[in-house]
Amino acid sequence: MSIHLYWIIGTGIVGLLFSFWKTGWILKQEEGSDKMKRIGASIAEGAMAFLRAEYRVLAVFVVVVAILLGWANFGREGSSALIALSFVTGAVASGLAGFLGMRVATKANNRTTHAARTGLAKALNVAFTGGSVMGLSVVALGVIGLSGLFLFYSHQFNNDYVRIITVLSGFSLGASSIALFARVGGGIYTKAADVGADLVGKVEAGIPEDHPLNPATIADNVGDNVGDVAGMGADLFESYVGSIVGSMVLGASVMVAGNMDTSFIILPLMIAGVGILVSILGTFMVSVKEGGNPQKGLNRGEFGSSFILLIIMFFIITKVLPSDFTLGGNVFTSLGVFWATLIGLLAGLGIGMITEYYTGTESRPVKSITRQSLTGPATNLIAGLGVGMQSTAIPIIILAAAIMGANHFAGLYGIAMAALGMLANTGIQLAVDAYGPISDNAGGIAEMANLPKEVRQRTDKLDAVGNTTAAIGKGFAIGSAALTSLALFAAFRTTVEAISGVPLSINITEARVMAGLFVGGMLPFLFSSLAMNAVGKAAMAMIEEVRRQFKSIPELAAALKVMKKYGEDQKMSSEDQKIFEAADGKAEYGKCVEISTSSAIRQMLMPGLLAICTPVLVGFVFGPETLGGLLAGVTVTGVLMAIFQSNAGGAWDNAKKLFEEGITINGEKYCKGSEAHKAAVVGDTVGDPFKDTSGPSLNILIKLMAVVSLVIAPLIIK
Amino acid sequence: MSIHLYWIIGTGIVGLLFSFWKTGWILKQEEGSDKMKRIGASIAEGAMAFLRAEYRVLAVFVVVVAILLGWANFGREGSSALIALSFVTGAVASGLAGFLGMRVATKANNRTTHAARTGLAKALNVAFTGGSVMGLSVVALGVIGLSGLFLFYSHQFNNDYVRIITVLSGFSLGASSIALFARVGGGIYTKAADVGADLVGKVEAGIPEDHPLNPATIADNVGDNVGDVAGMGADLFESYVGSIVGSMVLGASVMVAGNMDTSFIILPLMIAGVGILVSILGTFMVSVKEGGNPQKGLNRGEFGSSFILLIIMFFIITKVLPSDFTLGGNVFTSLGVFWATLIGLLAGLGIGMITEYYTGTESRPVKSITRQSLTGPATNLIAGLGVGMQSTAIPIIILAAAIMGANHFAGLYGIAMAALGMLANTGIQLAVDAYGPISDNAGGIAEMANLPKEVRQRTDKLDAVGNTTAAIGKGFAIGSAALTSLALFAAFRTTVEAISGVPLSINITEARVMAGLFVGGMLPFLFSSLAMNAVGKAAMAMIEEVRRQFKSIPELAAALKVMKKYGEDQKMSSEDQKIFEAADGKAEYGKCVEISTSSAIRQMLMPGLLAICTPVLVGFVFGPETLGGLLAGVTVTGVLMAIFQSNAGGAWDNAKKLFEEGITINGEKYCKGSEAHKAAVVGDTVGDPFKDTSGPSLNILIKLMAVVSLVIAPLIIK
Repeated sequence: MSIHLYWIIGTGIVGLLFSFWKTGWILKQEEGSDKMKRIGASIAEGAMAFLRAEYRVLAVFVVVVAILLGWANFGREGSSALIALSFVTGAVASGLAGFLGMRVATKANNRTTHAARTGLAKALNVAFTGGSVMGLSVVALGVIGLSGLFLFYSHQFNNDYVRIITVLSGFSLGASSIALFARVGGGIYTKAADVGADLVGKVEAGIPEDHPLNPATIADNVGDNVGDVAGMGADLFESYVGSIVGSMVLGASVMVAGNMDTSFIILPLMIAGVGILVSILGTFMVSVKEGGNPQKGLNRGEFGSSFILLIIMFFIITKVLPSDFTLGGNVFTSLGVFWATLIGLLAGLGIGMITEYYTGTESRPVKSITRQSLTGPATNLIAGLGVGMQSTAIPIIILAAAIMGANHFAGLYGIAMAALGMLANTGIQLAVDAYGPISDNAGGIAEMANLPKEVRQRTDKLDAVGNTTAAIGKGFAIGSAALTSLALFAAFRTTVEAISGVPLSINITEARVMAGLFVGGMLPFLFSSLAMNAVGKAAMAMIEEVRRQFKSIPELAAALKVMKKYGEDQKMSSEDQKIFEAADGKAEYGKCVEISTSSAIRQMLMPGLLAICTPVLVGFVFGPETLGGLLAGVTVTGVLMAIFQSNAGGAWDNAKKLFEEGITINGEKYCKGSEAHKAAVVGDTVGDPFKDTSGPSLNILIKLMAVVSLVIAPLIIK
Repeated sequence: MSIHLYWIIGTGIVGLLFSFWKTGWILKQEEGSDKMKRIGASIAEGAMAFLRAEYRVLAVFVVVVAILLGWANFGREGSSALIALSFVTGAVASGLAGFLGMRVATKANNRTTHAARTGLAKALNVAFTGGSVMGLSVVALGVIGLSGLFLFYSHQFNNDYVRIITVLSGFSLGASSIALFARVGGGIYTKAADVGADLVGKVEAGIPEDHPLNPATIADNVGDNVGDVAGMGADLFESYVGSIVGSMVLGASVMVAGNMDTSFIILPLMIAGVGILVSILGTFMVSVKEGGNPQKGLNRGEFGSSFILLIIMFFIITKVLPSDFTLGGNVFTSLGVFWATLIGLLAGLGIGMITEYYTGTESRPVKSITRQSLTGPATNLIAGLGVGMQSTAIPIIILAAAIMGANHFAGLYGIAMAALGMLANTGIQLAVDAYGPISDNAGGIAEMANLPKEVRQRTDKLDAVGNTTAAIGKGFAIGSAALTSLALFAAFRTTVEAISGVPLSINITEARVMAGLFVGGMLPFLFSSLAMNAVGKAAMAMIEEVRRQFKSIPELAAALKVMKKYGEDQKMSSEDQKIFEAADGKAEYGKCVEISTSSAIRQMLMPGLLAICTPVLVGFVFGPETLGGLLAGVTVTGVLMAIFQSNAGGAWDNAKKLFEEGITINGEKYCKGSEAHKAAVVGDTVGDPFKDTSGPSLNILIKLMAVVSLVIAPLIIK
């Protein structure tokens, strides 16, 4: 067994080395003009300042929780104070993953812009390489951390695997709690800046996105980094680790129940290790010829590597696991475990395709939103909310089918493996995801640095093509979150049963379970409202600041007036040009960055603590049945609200984009600036916190609450 | 026992006679000027046309379901084809309650307007009397129907009570299914008209609500009747019947389990019967002196009668029930049943107060929405969505506490009795609820008939004071829906257990239960989206029609132009006055009425059938455990979405009203017509389908699905 762990750790080290190598490559690329450098530096500085402020607060949190965990588990049979070590390691690894990814992203952005001056292929290469550093750091840190601790605990606890896994689950707790704070904090930051920049800049003042005259524009670009890069990195680290730990806990229970060897526990780590190597392979498949379609390059990387991984998984699973085994009175086969994994992959793909259908620019739902924008913002909003709610239907049916299917083939272990299957190639998935905000930033820099139009067009093209792949990624995120949290939930049950020695029946017709179910179901609503209110408040502060600057900084006011005189492609008179240039750099970007940072840090705490404290409170006061009800409730409504909010937000976003590209409805042409476009901007703005703050945080919330329950399970049973 | 049933039926007959007497009184009141009569007649005609169209469609549905029910249960042991009779009776009684209530409401509206010409007290009296006819018809029909069938089946099935109750549950199915269609259909109608009238009339053309120049104004007033009166009547009939039947089924299981007499079954009917008499008493307590506060009058009626009823319930419960009894291995007392009932009442009151807090004009949340309206519709919407989501928290905690408390005092029977406690004085609650739309209509007629300002001010005052009482009513509706559906859910379980002879464990950690939970949780989202889309589509059609009329009817176009010249209180020049008068009656109201009617009828079917067919499908294909999961899922998210949508809608509505009254924020005064007000109107419009279409329908949805499951329970076993 140790042998296996060594080579698994080896794959992690390979992943880390790869990401260092790619970081070096990025740093060697040209940064472009001085102005670009200056802008890039402002963004990087703002982003790092946020991360520093955030980590300072989180450090306190980590120390306090670690002490509590260590104290509560000290000398406890079946557990150990070392769980605090797992927790701290998980938290630090998560923070490190976010930091490494964001650092390289803030280096890659203006280098992508510069590359886009010469061509598309080069720019894709820089942006994607930036993303792949993030992707590989995340998986490498996850695998090294988990396998390393596992190895250490194996010696420590003399191969008492149930205990080892119990203590190891603290790693997942650390990863999930940091991820929740990072997602929420980053989400508040980015959306406050975005809403502020959009509403006052685009709608009121009528200047393009990322225009240097807009004081919120640097904050907006910082937001892309702290939200979409660092936040997402922590998020995927959490998912990845959660799915591995969930399968390991259930693997341990298979092992104990069937008197088997350790193969069920080690299998998830093996798959993760192989996934790293395949992800690296995948990055080499991503490329595009000049004039070619970058989408194809990305697809080749993502789907090609998935396919290879699937084949390898087949051989690993059928070779490593015993050909048949018993679980909960049923006999399953190793082939069944493979089928369960495949079901997970297919379910993720299916949910992704539905996501694409409901949010893609070509789709009927998005077009129906554009049509209903003609009658104003109210009907645009009603339509978008309707689309979001409707879009929950098929994904949920797919999920329900996947749950029943995976369970049929391999019991609860199958459900855990289905989740793991979706996340095995997180390395490349995250590379593709992180490539998006890098391109987005690159576009912002092009705009702010007044580069020629075609540069921005190239970066826009890069940004746009990531969408389908990102939609698939979202499908995997939601699907795996649901399955992982069910696996963790099942792990909670088996842990309670193992300790108490009696079966735990969480029967929904019992009053205490019903009560838990209701309260659990309510939490995603409360959580979302906290997130939305936070964004609302921060955005208001931002709007007021931008308005203030537009009014009180004379150069800005003058330049805005000048701009209004000219159409998009008209040339300014030299006099006006002078006024316009006088305004350059006069906007006080720093103030906006400050507003976003301080609001985000202040307001991420409540939602985060809510998620962590509620299961503890319910578990200790009302016992494991009510806590079980709570978990079931939070999982169901959490998944639903996540799909609803993400898709409504995505659909509004693309409805707005359709107007910006120009769209013909009922024979009439509507463009940017039309009343219908303005209505669509309102929808997009409402959708912003939905899709980038509360929606994605919910995926973490449900797993975090499950893992908190899993970790406290030994403590709430007398 | 029969003796008891006879006096219970007697109370129902007293209720009916009372409502006939009051109808006669209404008809004797003055109708006002010819113009008022004409307007009143148009509204009544539109409303009846809708009801006819709706009932024609529903008749087909009722016949088909009755045949299916009769066929499936024919000759089946423990059940009977007579269940079809119960179903048809329930459906007809529900339809009749809606019809009777709406008929008198459409008579009372212009009589209230006329009364308001002389004073407030008289107008309150007319409007409230109109509401009380509705209230008493509903409870009388419920009690007569249930008791009558019970009496009939007692002879038929020779006092085999389990079978009697099984067959009787068809009554509740009939009531619930009609209620769902009526709520959805009425909700689509009223909101399509309202949104159309508001957006084009108020916002685009700038004319006041209910202005005769607005072509959608008659449809809007018809909508108040078909949605808020007929729809709500069917809704409360359904709740009332559902809570009685739920307690009777659980009463039967107490009886069987403990070898008791019939007191547990008959108690709910007794309480309902006494509730009718107390409600009648309550109507006499409602009055207001000229210049006094109508709120006090309503409160006296509602809270006074609740208090009296509570005391009577104490004596009935402790006298009728055995002093102690065993249920599920626990010993409970009759006093415990009373405590459970009291807990229900307190929970309803608590939820109502929270509703008032989140939606009242004086409250912090609503004021925060007004503040966020200053930065435009997007922030107004984000704020409102946040408030709605946040408002779920405390009600859910109250509910969870009530579930645990009622269960502690009297087991599942206690939960059912808690629901019944909230609904025992439905008679007067509904009277207060229905009084609102009557006053609203009266105001509309005053506006359309160009009556002096003070008339409208008086009706507005009447309309406004009902709000707190209505909020409490909403609390009762939501609370009782949750508890009733849990009771029906428990009834489903006990029925399955009674038939199969083995305990039914619906364990959430089982895959098939999880899958059911997810799908069930998704249904309220899908259902809401169908309702919202329906409103969106119908509203679009309405908007286009109103715009068309404003453009293509020259008199209207001219009058609109004239109107814009004058402020709210300025006098027109005689020439302009002529142009203005020439437009009177030129708007083609009928077309708008037609659009609303046909859209509503067409689009109510899908959501209704979804609710009825899903449990049947799941039950037959996947069995009772998955169906149990489905019910738990739909109950939890249904309650949450209902609270979220109702409160968000209510808060937006009142935020808008604050601007219309004029509000000072940060030292600046904002009025009607300001940009902030326009933003608030957008929020209100989005909230309209939330609070009046999908929100309230969800309360019915969850009970309907539970009662469908209860009715099919005997069919899906083995």
